Amino acid sequence: MTKLSHLGEFGLIESLKRFQNLSQRVVKGIGDDAAVLKVKGGRYLLFTTDMLVQDVHFSLRMSPASVGHKALACNLSDIAAMGGEPVFAVVSLGVPGNISASYVKGLYAGMWAVARAFGVSIVGGDTVRSDKVVVNIALLGEVEKRKLIRRQGARTGDWIFVSGPLGGSFKSGRHLKFTPRVKEARFLVGKFKPSAMMDLSDGLAGDLAHILKASCVGALIEEKLIPRHRGVSVDRALTDGEDFELLFTMPSARAKKLLEYEGPEKFRFYPIGVVRPRREGFCMVRANSQVEAVEVKGYRHF
Amino acid sequence: MTKLSHLGEFGLIESLKRFQNLSQRVVKGIGDDAAVLKVKGGRYLLFTTDMLVQDVHFSLRMSPASVGHKALACNLSDIAAMGGEPVFAVVSLGVPGNISASYVKGLYAGMWAVARAFGVSIVGGDTVRSDKVVVNIALLGEVEKRKLIRRQGARTGDWIFVSGPLGGSFKSGRHLKFTPRVKEARFLVGKFKPSAMMDLSDGLAGDLAHILKASCVGALIEEKLIPRHRGVSVDRALTDGEDFELLFTMPSARAKKLLEYEGPEKFRFYPIGVVRPRREGFCMVRANSQVEAVEVKGYRHF
Repeated sequence: MTKLSHLGEFGLIESLKRFQNLSQRVVKGIGDDAAVLKVKGGRYLLFTTDMLVQDVHFSLRMSPASVGHKALACNLSDIAAMGGEPVFAVVSLGVPGNISASYVKGLYAGMWAVARAFGVSIVGGDTVRSDKVVVNIALLGEVEKRKLIRRQGARTGDWIFVSGPLGGSFKSGRHLKFTPRVKEARFLVGKFKPSAMMDLSDGLAGDLAHILKASCVGALIEEKLIPRHRGVSVDRALTDGEDFELLFTMPSARAKKLLEYEGPEKFRFYPIGVVRPRREGFCMVRANSQVEAVEVKGYRHF
Repeated sequence: MTKLSHLGEFGLIESLKRFQNLSQRVVKGIGDDAAVLKVKGGRYLLFTTDMLVQDVHFSLRMSPASVGHKALACNLSDIAAMGGEPVFAVVSLGVPGNISASYVKGLYAGMWAVARAFGVSIVGGDTVRSDKVVVNIALLGEVEKRKLIRRQGARTGDWIFVSGPLGGSFKSGRHLKFTPRVKEARFLVGKFKPSAMMDLSDGLAGDLAHILKASCVGALIEEKLIPRHRGVSVDRALTDGEDFELLFTMPSARAKKLLEYEGPEKFRFYPIGVVRPRREGFCMVRANSQVEAVEVKGYRHF
């Protein structure tokens, strides 16, 4: 078994060069002080980062490829949430000196599969020693100015949607293999532009509260409309994190057309309620038709 | 003492918002899924990242501000090495739940002082739980296409320079408070464009070897020309890492003009040798006039 301490950082960098996507827009990738990249005019850059730490976000028992997958996919989800296309990534890796080279290659293989599927070029990084495995990815995306979507922008009367069933992501292991909703988001901003959007990372209750706060509105959602994974209670669907589905709002006329849309794209979006005036707060119609205030408690990182 | 676990991630984000630089080019900074940034046309983007890990790169006995300083400054040094200007940064922080809020604020204060001094906007980040403190910064810079400098480009007859004295950085604590050579690099690319450049992070011997390899050339340096910090041996000046000075090559006619330059900028650059044909290898004239091959061994991360 080749230990990373034998391969060394330069050996690792050499073995990673083949992962470089040969995008014409990468003037210089791995192997200089910084990557050199061409940008498209008339677009905004989107810039995001996520850190995954061993024994907090994943364990060494999980396959390294799935950890690499998640590390990149959760960044892609953030770019999707703004309506953008992911383009370039840099990867920082902290690993113990005695970790196997195959573990590190597995991590990169997982990242690279996601990068390839979504047209992302991994253009650089840093590899350092660390007691525990730490994976940090910073991702650049781009969005046409008119397609940018933010958390503010939801208006009273808008419908509220999610892009898939919720809950139980961590327990089921789905958090390690989810598909970031980049294609769904690009479909939406191209054909049915949402008024506000974000990705569900901390749980529906907490994340919808972010959109409501940013947009100065309230909401009424319906328990029986919330799509859930098998065996997941409504409360878990509201508060479990790491679903990485899109949460968005849309004016009702457009929302009806979205639900009637029959094109080549077979995406499914689930209406779960409507935006209400701020004074009405954030409420849910229970299955028994009682209306209750939604308690906002998302995933707490500390 | 406020623990981070009391302040929480949202409290932390709120307290960080005031660190946001109000650059007109930041459409949206901290507080959405990704930062939204305007880019200038006709320039390349530069993209780099560095990770610092507690008990590997720093200890908790060092001031958090100096750790924050270093975390950003070593990224700035990479952008400088390409001839660019640093613009936008995202910061990932892994910290134990029981760390004091003042420690985390100290880290950011150190970063922010550097960011302000060099016109960088901190536009986003991630904060997660971790046994040890981990700081990862990803930095975006820009460079006019004609000002880009890479490691390749050194030609036989070019002079070799460094931007300051070398050695003993870690032992002396200088690695925590160095000034990244952004201004020096911008002066050079504007007035005396180097043929190749990088920053000295792994030690002169190893780093110059990178330029020689990338440029397919050799070098002859002179021991007595290598500027050293007080009490540092030549061997340490060659192999100690973390100097973060610029290392560059320049055609001799231009190099002479650089040394004669008398303008408002008071930068000092030290010629240390000349580029030679590749077949002559990488050699040094010792103080006793003997010529020896330079042993290439830089800092080993694993």
